[in-house]
Amino acid sequence: MKAARYYSKGDVRVDDVDEPQPAEGQLIVDVEWCGICGSDLHEYIIGPTIVPKKENPHPLTGQHLPLTLGHELCGRVRSPPAGSKFKDGDAVMVDPRVVCHSCLACKSGSSHCCSYLGYIGANTGFGGFGETVLATEDRLYLLPPEVPLEVSAVLEPLVIVQHAIKVSGVKDFKDQDILVLGGGPIGFALLLCLKAVGASKVLVSEPAALRRSQVTEFCSSVLDPSKENVAERCKELTDGKGVDLVFDCAGVAPACAAAMDAIRFEGLYIMIALWEQPITIPCLQFVVKHITMEASHIFDDDSMGEVIQMIVDGKLTGFEKMVTGRIKIDDIVSQGFNELINHKDQHIKILVSPK
Amino acid sequence: MKAARYYSKGDVRVDDVDEPQPAEGQLIVDVEWCGICGSDLHEYIIGPTIVPKKENPHPLTGQHLPLTLGHELCGRVRSPPAGSKFKDGDAVMVDPRVVCHSCLACKSGSSHCCSYLGYIGANTGFGGFGETVLATEDRLYLLPPEVPLEVSAVLEPLVIVQHAIKVSGVKDFKDQDILVLGGGPIGFALLLCLKAVGASKVLVSEPAALRRSQVTEFCSSVLDPSKENVAERCKELTDGKGVDLVFDCAGVAPACAAAMDAIRFEGLYIMIALWEQPITIPCLQFVVKHITMEASHIFDDDSMGEVIQMIVDGKLTGFEKMVTGRIKIDDIVSQGFNELINHKDQHIKILVSPK
Repeated sequence: MKAARYYSKGDVRVDDVDEPQPAEGQLIVDVEWCGICGSDLHEYIIGPTIVPKKENPHPLTGQHLPLTLGHELCGRVRSPPAGSKFKDGDAVMVDPRVVCHSCLACKSGSSHCCSYLGYIGANTGFGGFGETVLATEDRLYLLPPEVPLEVSAVLEPLVIVQHAIKVSGVKDFKDQDILVLGGGPIGFALLLCLKAVGASKVLVSEPAALRRSQVTEFCSSVLDPSKENVAERCKELTDGKGVDLVFDCAGVAPACAAAMDAIRFEGLYIMIALWEQPITIPCLQFVVKHITMEASHIFDDDSMGEVIQMIVDGKLTGFEKMVTGRIKIDDIVSQGFNELINHKDQHIKILVSPK
Repeated sequence: MKAARYYSKGDVRVDDVDEPQPAEGQLIVDVEWCGICGSDLHEYIIGPTIVPKKENPHPLTGQHLPLTLGHELCGRVRSPPAGSKFKDGDAVMVDPRVVCHSCLACKSGSSHCCSYLGYIGANTGFGGFGETVLATEDRLYLLPPEVPLEVSAVLEPLVIVQHAIKVSGVKDFKDQDILVLGGGPIGFALLLCLKAVGASKVLVSEPAALRRSQVTEFCSSVLDPSKENVAERCKELTDGKGVDLVFDCAGVAPACAAAMDAIRFEGLYIMIALWEQPITIPCLQFVVKHITMEASHIFDDDSMGEVIQMIVDGKLTGFEKMVTGRIKIDDIVSQGFNELINHKDQHIKILVSPK
């Protein structure tokens, strides 16, 4: 079968590989679509960072370079074993996480903090940029009619931000003045989820004009940090108070500094972005204002089901607009990775068909 | 009266100044002792930072350079007006905070986040390094016999850390594995308060040998970050888990980096230190482990009373050991500021008598 495998920085090849063989408890899923995530691109540009090298294989899977990328994937179950809750051809979303089930984090219900956390498409012998993957039944989510396979690969970033929204601990978003840093794929997904949970005042800071235009319809105001003083504008838009809640989907120091100025006393700052540099925070505002900064990474065991339910309930809409490109696996380098490098701002999510 | 006034970096003079005259509602307090705080020293070494300049006087007091320093102060009430709850000669601790009582923070019970926060000894026309100060009745705490005036000036750093302990939100400290970064005055005070609230496993990381020896009796283990791998030692001492809670009383990047490695998943990091540089956090550990970092600054309206009660109840002990020097106001530069600059590690707290 075809699989786009990552060998090293700048080196992704569409190889002909053996189909993975299911172990006991694993189901076969034929991939329909898989989104290119920022972390796939990150590996391509500056990796390997999360794909393990030969001398240091993943502790749970034993896998190492070269590996098939792609973890934002959906597909159809093929020939499930007797007794499975799935039928042949069932459309499913795949929770790509690989966890140990035995470390303190896993045992205390925080599998997203598993000491050996890995995922399909980075730490397994197969990935979403290949024709077939394997997964245990508990990692598969039956897609209802409201979530067609054509767009369901965009669910994964929605699940990431749904988890971050829960991490905030905020119960009522209606009264929260929110600032989102970055209008890229994660920022965009966050706007949709924030709308779904009832947020009414959401400001976005995004320097790229095209991205600002993409998010305009899903938020209250879009600020251009290259031209506007984000902190002053946030205060103007919140009667001088400052924002209550910041979601960092940008991961750059100038955005963080502006947000520390824009946030109110005892405000909450949720860090979703993985910074390429150490996180740098202006100390005085952070300390004097008693800010809380809380990190959110990946997602827990419940978030994928919650996102699907929010769509079924009609609360989470607009996600089909996240798809800005569809390509075939053979074109993944030229029309996928290189397209995202050269025309980053024109895209939210490019979906790849591995067939 | 005598007052040690701050003019500019490196320039503190003992001047003869007029005694401050109480406005309505203010009581006169004759200062007995006032501790030299790190922030007084900070002004002396690299200020002015918090003492306002002439062109930018404090918005509540209208005061500016030169100003009398000193905010860790205790003394005796002199000739209180009729109807006061205090008697002439009453020994009191002074809450030095100056707040507006009208901003959103003050009105919502978070006066420690007041938009115009100032304090006696930095933003008022008098300070603890002068013979007399003024304060409203609600800022004075009657000292019980258990807290003699001789040592009560060390209460202020204890109040700072008591507030930080509350900010953590931890209800039961008995089961917490705690790492304290820095064994200086704030770190030392924190160890006493942590013991008072029932903490049983407290590790301290401190590079200075003298400071390590000072804190040994008040904690479980003292680590030397210049010789030991703090993260590995913390894991060894917590059965591989890592510490649950970090208090940063150091404010330097290497200590923070080691703590991010030492802390468990979903751990809590309380920032008490004011860093001289922007706060720098290794991103991957912070995000992947879902760490929460929460800032604590100054203290709220309740903490000073709580600390006094903890002493009366016999829970908070050993604070007299914080006094490592007593000097007269005339010697404040040579035996106070310069002594702390030249022999920083030999001191926890130097108390100054303004008489």
